[in-house]
Amino acid sequence: MAGETPMLDAPSEKKDLITRNLQEVLGEDKLAEILKERDLKIYWGTATTGKPHVAYFVPMSKIGDFLKAGCEVTILFADLHAYLDNMKAPWELLALRTEYYEHCIKAMLTSIGVPLDKLKFVKGTEYQLSREYTLDIYKLSSIITEHDAKKAGAEVVKQVDHPLLSGLLYPALQALDEEYLHVDAQFGGVDQRKIFTFAEKYLPQLGYQKRIHLMNPMVPGLAGGKMSASEEDSKIDLLDSPAALKKKLKKAFCEPGNIADNGVLAFVKHVLFSLFKPGEGFQVHRNPEFGGDRTFMSYESLEEAFAKEELHPGDLKAATEVYLNKLLDPIRKTFETPELKKLLEKAYPAPGKQREREPRTIVSGLVNFVPIEELQDRNVVVLCNLKPAKMRGVESNGMVLCASVEEPKAVEPLIPPPGSQPGEKVVVEGYESGSPDEVLNPKKKIWEKLQVDLKVGSNLEAEWQGNSLLTTSGKVTSKSLKNAPIR
Amino acid sequence: MAGETPMLDAPSEKKDLITRNLQEVLGEDKLAEILKERDLKIYWGTATTGKPHVAYFVPMSKIGDFLKAGCEVTILFADLHAYLDNMKAPWELLALRTEYYEHCIKAMLTSIGVPLDKLKFVKGTEYQLSREYTLDIYKLSSIITEHDAKKAGAEVVKQVDHPLLSGLLYPALQALDEEYLHVDAQFGGVDQRKIFTFAEKYLPQLGYQKRIHLMNPMVPGLAGGKMSASEEDSKIDLLDSPAALKKKLKKAFCEPGNIADNGVLAFVKHVLFSLFKPGEGFQVHRNPEFGGDRTFMSYESLEEAFAKEELHPGDLKAATEVYLNKLLDPIRKTFETPELKKLLEKAYPAPGKQREREPRTIVSGLVNFVPIEELQDRNVVVLCNLKPAKMRGVESNGMVLCASVEEPKAVEPLIPPPGSQPGEKVVVEGYESGSPDEVLNPKKKIWEKLQVDLKVGSNLEAEWQGNSLLTTSGKVTSKSLKNAPIR
Repeated sequence: MAGETPMLDAPSEKKDLITRNLQEVLGEDKLAEILKERDLKIYWGTATTGKPHVAYFVPMSKIGDFLKAGCEVTILFADLHAYLDNMKAPWELLALRTEYYEHCIKAMLTSIGVPLDKLKFVKGTEYQLSREYTLDIYKLSSIITEHDAKKAGAEVVKQVDHPLLSGLLYPALQALDEEYLHVDAQFGGVDQRKIFTFAEKYLPQLGYQKRIHLMNPMVPGLAGGKMSASEEDSKIDLLDSPAALKKKLKKAFCEPGNIADNGVLAFVKHVLFSLFKPGEGFQVHRNPEFGGDRTFMSYESLEEAFAKEELHPGDLKAATEVYLNKLLDPIRKTFETPELKKLLEKAYPAPGKQREREPRTIVSGLVNFVPIEELQDRNVVVLCNLKPAKMRGVESNGMVLCASVEEPKAVEPLIPPPGSQPGEKVVVEGYESGSPDEVLNPKKKIWEKLQVDLKVGSNLEAEWQGNSLLTTSGKVTSKSLKNAPIR
Repeated sequence: MAGETPMLDAPSEKKDLITRNLQEVLGEDKLAEILKERDLKIYWGTATTGKPHVAYFVPMSKIGDFLKAGCEVTILFADLHAYLDNMKAPWELLALRTEYYEHCIKAMLTSIGVPLDKLKFVKGTEYQLSREYTLDIYKLSSIITEHDAKKAGAEVVKQVDHPLLSGLLYPALQALDEEYLHVDAQFGGVDQRKIFTFAEKYLPQLGYQKRIHLMNPMVPGLAGGKMSASEEDSKIDLLDSPAALKKKLKKAFCEPGNIADNGVLAFVKHVLFSLFKPGEGFQVHRNPEFGGDRTFMSYESLEEAFAKEELHPGDLKAATEVYLNKLLDPIRKTFETPELKKLLEKAYPAPGKQREREPRTIVSGLVNFVPIEELQDRNVVVLCNLKPAKMRGVESNGMVLCASVEEPKAVEPLIPPPGSQPGEKVVVEGYESGSPDEVLNPKKKIWEKLQVDLKVGSNLEAEWQGNSLLTTSGKVTSKSLKNAPIR
């Protein structure tokens, strides 16, 4: 379907390719001016959180246009943002995810036949924690009102009852990125519009240039609701098998005649048609009894046929499936190497190993002196199931809580304060009067949720989210391990 | 009056000295615990903005107590905050002010007879722009709500209609300072209470220790209203002459019998009585006809006499003046050296040389080709007075605008774009349609206001607040000097 497109020479041709299918361009005159002199430098940012899925073909199609138009494209992996979004995901994991994103993006762009020689990848942490950048953030914070910062983030920062400070800082960071990535323009969805105009307003106040902004329309998800929504199952992964793809497409919302709310049509429009070469059309194969084969040379003709119900959703989906498999095949192939398989496994461990959202649950358990082999003669803190349970077929008295560090490897059972009684409840300071939300069980998710916030502090005291673990006799402690997670 | 105080040995004596006269202590148990093991590490922060005045004797008296109790005291000069408070004050000026503060504080502590060997000074910029600190600020911003940040700053951040983001960040910075300065405790006025409890809440959430907080009462200014208010005239400078001191004290609000709202009494209580050695009292000299000499051995007895109007405000002021001169004399002497005189001059240039608040004025002038000696044959941009004016008695055609850098020293007249006409107006992009607020005159304040924002950018283009300087033919430029102020 797609191959190497010849490079364009005329500035106006480049400009047309750069701006086609966009919903809005801010700074079009400047864009034309720059293209008369040299190629455009542009950046697109993405936070390296969830796995990239087929919706990424939408920005990739535009990035393909930019690269074909000779632009220098920088892809910013917002690893600092990803870290702050979920502080329990360690940096090593984020580094693996960033690597995985880079492989995915390269594979997608290669699949759509785009030259990669003018593409580069930058991680936010490469410059966002530098002295100069940080000083600029503080300078911006001294001229930006809370009101303006909040307004700028209104469409992209999660709107919650108790908004966090970080949400107010993100627009300033994104503005400064334009300066520190040395680009002429930033590309993003039209949901970024307020952030973009905010950048246009504030960068000049630090003595920096106002940038050009290129905005893609918001494209609904291919399969089901909004693609970026959390309905994991409906997202089509880049590495989904043809069978999985077929199944998910089958479920996709695609009403006969409804062209307004139709993720399949949107994908065909924004991805497939932008990849067709002149003379190429969207081919639908049908039995002669259902109207026979048909080729749509423009998206408009396809949309019209669908609106008139001359094209059935099933046939649209089947045709899209063929194209999608063509796009995904080379990507699936790329990720068949043992190295990339291993990378994927480490970057996105199987569900159940992943941490869930911040827990707000009460930790509670029982202090017990249990006769477990090597712990026979020692007082240790045991987190008991509040109901008796069998662990690996053996009646369990509970789980021994230990402080543990990796380097040098060391494990120490936690010690209850002198005077604690066997079977006593362990509570978290500040939550003393509460009752546990769920039965604690090391096999259950609730334990994983709590565990990430359990640790021994530098004072040897056990804590959960910074609050001490207590029995009625005082604080639970560790013998010598400081700053150690509790497992 | 004051001399070297013998060092204390018993932890309880140290604790008494550390906590005397304080309004509130958070973490008193921990304080006692630490003192049993070792000396306390404590910090006090101050932004290096205005000149330190006699009100600084209030915190200095407590810092004297800390040092006498063997504490390691760190004084944090919040130069980053000072910079952000007034971004037009260049770093070089702030460095001079920090130096001046250090000399003042040492002179004050020496004057009150305190040992300086356990005192150290740290500038905020030494660590507040580091990678680790910055990451911690972002982490805090990801767990602190806007609401909590605002509440924490309610008493110390200026409350305005359009609050700035920086005000929301300051509490987090102040909390982290405790960790990065490696102290056990922070000292401040009780107006800092919400910031302190905020620090106690959030540091543990980053895995850091909760610190002890020592709070001084709020002490009204010695001369007139609140000492920290902007009534410059009423502040008694550390270097005020005895005559100036007398004059300011005379004006100080000190109503007969009124002990509630009395800055003179407050100063006597919090500074002078804390400096008296055992057996020393506050001496009042009076003519026999007005009651004769009297010595108050405790502040309470003095206050009682004043309340009963047995002590007249004039006599209280005269006695205070004597003590104050004793405190200030050695400081005045210290600052008589040519080095320190020069430092003061450079750190706080005479009024009129100082920058005022952010200008929102239009820059406008005339481009002219003027017959000035060495510039005779060159096109240069001249900022003319819009009305003819005489400069140093000579008819002036205006001021030649030059880009200039300090190192290596270089000055270049700005160049109008080709095609500009002599006498043409220079305007700021975005303000083309406005008319100048005032006649520009290098002797007037308006010029100083504008000048601080005039510079040549990295693209050789002249700009004001990031907006280009234009004639009808285009942009005003510099030949080779980049990032250079325009003078």
